[in-house]
Amino acid sequence: MIRIGIIGYGNLGRGVECALQQNPDMKLVGVFTRRNPNSVSILSNDVKVYQIDEAIDHKDDIDVMILCGGSATDLPVQSVEFAKNFNIVDSYDTHAKIPEHFAGVNKSAKLNHKLALISAGWDPGMFSLNRVYANAMLPNGNDYTFWGKGVSQGHSDAIRRVKGVKDARQYTIPIDKALEAVRSGENPALSTREKHLRECFVVVEEGADKVKIEEEIKSMPNYFSDYDTIVHFISEEELMRDHSGIPHGGFVIRSGKTGWQNEHNAIIEYSLKLDSNPEFTSSILVAYARAVYRMAKRNHEGCITVFDVAPADLCIQDNEILRKEFL
Amino acid sequence: MIRIGIIGYGNLGRGVECALQQNPDMKLVGVFTRRNPNSVSILSNDVKVYQIDEAIDHKDDIDVMILCGGSATDLPVQSVEFAKNFNIVDSYDTHAKIPEHFAGVNKSAKLNHKLALISAGWDPGMFSLNRVYANAMLPNGNDYTFWGKGVSQGHSDAIRRVKGVKDARQYTIPIDKALEAVRSGENPALSTREKHLRECFVVVEEGADKVKIEEEIKSMPNYFSDYDTIVHFISEEELMRDHSGIPHGGFVIRSGKTGWQNEHNAIIEYSLKLDSNPEFTSSILVAYARAVYRMAKRNHEGCITVFDVAPADLCIQDNEILRKEFL
Repeated sequence: MIRIGIIGYGNLGRGVECALQQNPDMKLVGVFTRRNPNSVSILSNDVKVYQIDEAIDHKDDIDVMILCGGSATDLPVQSVEFAKNFNIVDSYDTHAKIPEHFAGVNKSAKLNHKLALISAGWDPGMFSLNRVYANAMLPNGNDYTFWGKGVSQGHSDAIRRVKGVKDARQYTIPIDKALEAVRSGENPALSTREKHLRECFVVVEEGADKVKIEEEIKSMPNYFSDYDTIVHFISEEELMRDHSGIPHGGFVIRSGKTGWQNEHNAIIEYSLKLDSNPEFTSSILVAYARAVYRMAKRNHEGCITVFDVAPADLCIQDNEILRKEFL
Repeated sequence: MIRIGIIGYGNLGRGVECALQQNPDMKLVGVFTRRNPNSVSILSNDVKVYQIDEAIDHKDDIDVMILCGGSATDLPVQSVEFAKNFNIVDSYDTHAKIPEHFAGVNKSAKLNHKLALISAGWDPGMFSLNRVYANAMLPNGNDYTFWGKGVSQGHSDAIRRVKGVKDARQYTIPIDKALEAVRSGENPALSTREKHLRECFVVVEEGADKVKIEEEIKSMPNYFSDYDTIVHFISEEELMRDHSGIPHGGFVIRSGKTGWQNEHNAIIEYSLKLDSNPEFTSSILVAYARAVYRMAKRNHEGCITVFDVAPADLCIQDNEILRKEFL
C-alpha cells in the first residue's frame, strides 16, 4: 500500500480523497490543515485531520505527500518546505514562474534525498504532455490550446469586485469556428477574440445600475476587453441552481506536416470535458503520486515534472498486463 | 548527431527518410533492402542503399536501426535478429502477438546489451499511450477506440480477391452517432455495426456481374458481414484520381467518473486525422529512435515499449526548455 498524506483540504484536497478511493493500492493516512482540525470534516470515516505543523511527526508513515494549496502563495513556500521531509506532488500552475519554482523545490529535495514532482494537473500537466508528444512527432507544425467550456475562477472573482455585483460566474467558451479552422489544417493565425468567448452570469444588489455594470465588465482590461463578452443578469436562486458546478475542459491541437515536401497534413487533438475540474486535477495528482513512490524506490531524487515520468509508472497494472491489454 | 539506419524501403521506410529531414539532431546513414540496391531509388541524394546482409558491416556507424518491414513475416524475424547488433525500433502491430514478440526481442537484446523498442506507431503506439494515461487518471471508466476515416489495406486486399474485381479501396468510417453517444458520457454498449461503417470503391473487369460482386463483398465473413457496407463501382481513372492517398486516423476516448459517489463525468479524447498514415507512423518511429539512443547511453538494455519512455526523451529540446516553454 502506498501511504498518502494531503496538505490542505479545499476542493483539490477533497478531490484527492475521492480519487484515492478508486486506487486500491493507495491509502490516505492523514489530512493536514492550517485550520482548526476539529472544524474540518472530511469524507473518510477512518482518517484523522491534523494541524499542518504535526505533519513532520508522520514523516515515516507517509510515502508521498500531496500538496493541495494554491499556487499564488501556498505552494511556493510549502513545496520547498515539505520536500525536505517528504516525497511530494504539487499542482503548481503559474506557468511563467515554473522554472523558479522548479529550482527551489529541486534544491530542497536533492539536499534531503527526496523526490518532488511539480505542476501535475491538466494544464500544466496533461495538456503540457500532449504538447510535448505532439511536438516530438510533428516537429514541423503549430500548437493551439483552447480552454473551456468551463468556469474561470479568476474571471468570476474579477466580476465580483465590480461595485453593485453580489455574485457571479464566468464561463470561458472556445469558439467553434476557430476550432474548426484549426482542425482543417489551415494553420490560422487567431486573435484572442477569435479563440474564446466569455459568458458571465451576474447577480446584482438591489437597485444596482445594470447598464453600468455590464459596461464595466466588458471594458475590464486583461480580463474582458480583448474578448466578446456576454453578460446575463440572473437571480441568486438561478445562480445557485444552474451554475454551482465547477466544470472545465479544453483542447490541445497540433497541426503539422509530413512528407518529403511537407505535402501532407497531420492533426493531433487532445481534449477534456470535465464535470469537475478539481476532481480531475486531483485524479492526476494521485496517479503521479504512484509514480513518485515507485521512482523514489528506484533512488530518483530532486525535482521532476510529468515530462520525466514513463507512463507505465502511473499505472496500477504491471507492465506485462499493460503490454498485453493496452498496447 | 544520432546516426540512423533504415531496414526496408516501402511506404514506412520512405516515411522515416522524410521524418529525419525534420529532426536536425539525426541523420540517415544508410538504407538496407532485400531488393537489388541498384533498383531502389531513395529521396536523399547523399545516402547509399545497401543489400540487407551488408547491415552488419555498419554496426559501428549506426546508433539506432529503424525496422520498416511488415508485422506478418518480416519483423518477427528481423527484430530478433537485428537486436543482436543494433539498438532498434520497430512498429510491430499484431496486437495479440505482442507479448510473444516482446519476449523474443527482449532475450536477443539483453544477451547482446542492446536496447529495442517495439510496437511504436499510433495503434499500437500513441493510441496505447493514451489508453494507459487515461486509465491511470480515471480508473473508474470505459475505453472506446474508433478508427478512421481511413484506408484499410487488409479490407482493400480482401475485396481485390473477389472474382471480377480489378482494384479496390476500402474506407473504415467511425459512425458519428456512436462517437456522440460516447462523448456525452452515457457509456453506451456498442455493437461492431454501430461503431464503424465500411465504404468500398471498386473497379471491376469488363463484363463482370456487379450485383454478384456487391453481394459477395457485403456478405464476406470477418471483413464485412458484421458491418453496414456501402459499395460504389467506379472507373480505374476515378480510383487513381480520388483514392490514391493513404489517409487514416481515429479516436481514443475514455469516459470516466470522479467524485466521492462517482457523481461527475470526465471525458478524455485523443484523436488523429492523417493525410498519410505511413508518414505519421514513421514520424513516431523517429521520435522513439531518439529516446532509444538516449536511453541506451544511460545503459538501458533489453526490450521496451512506449510505456517505458519518459516523454522528455522524445524531444530535441532539453528539459529546461521543455519546462519553460511546454509545461
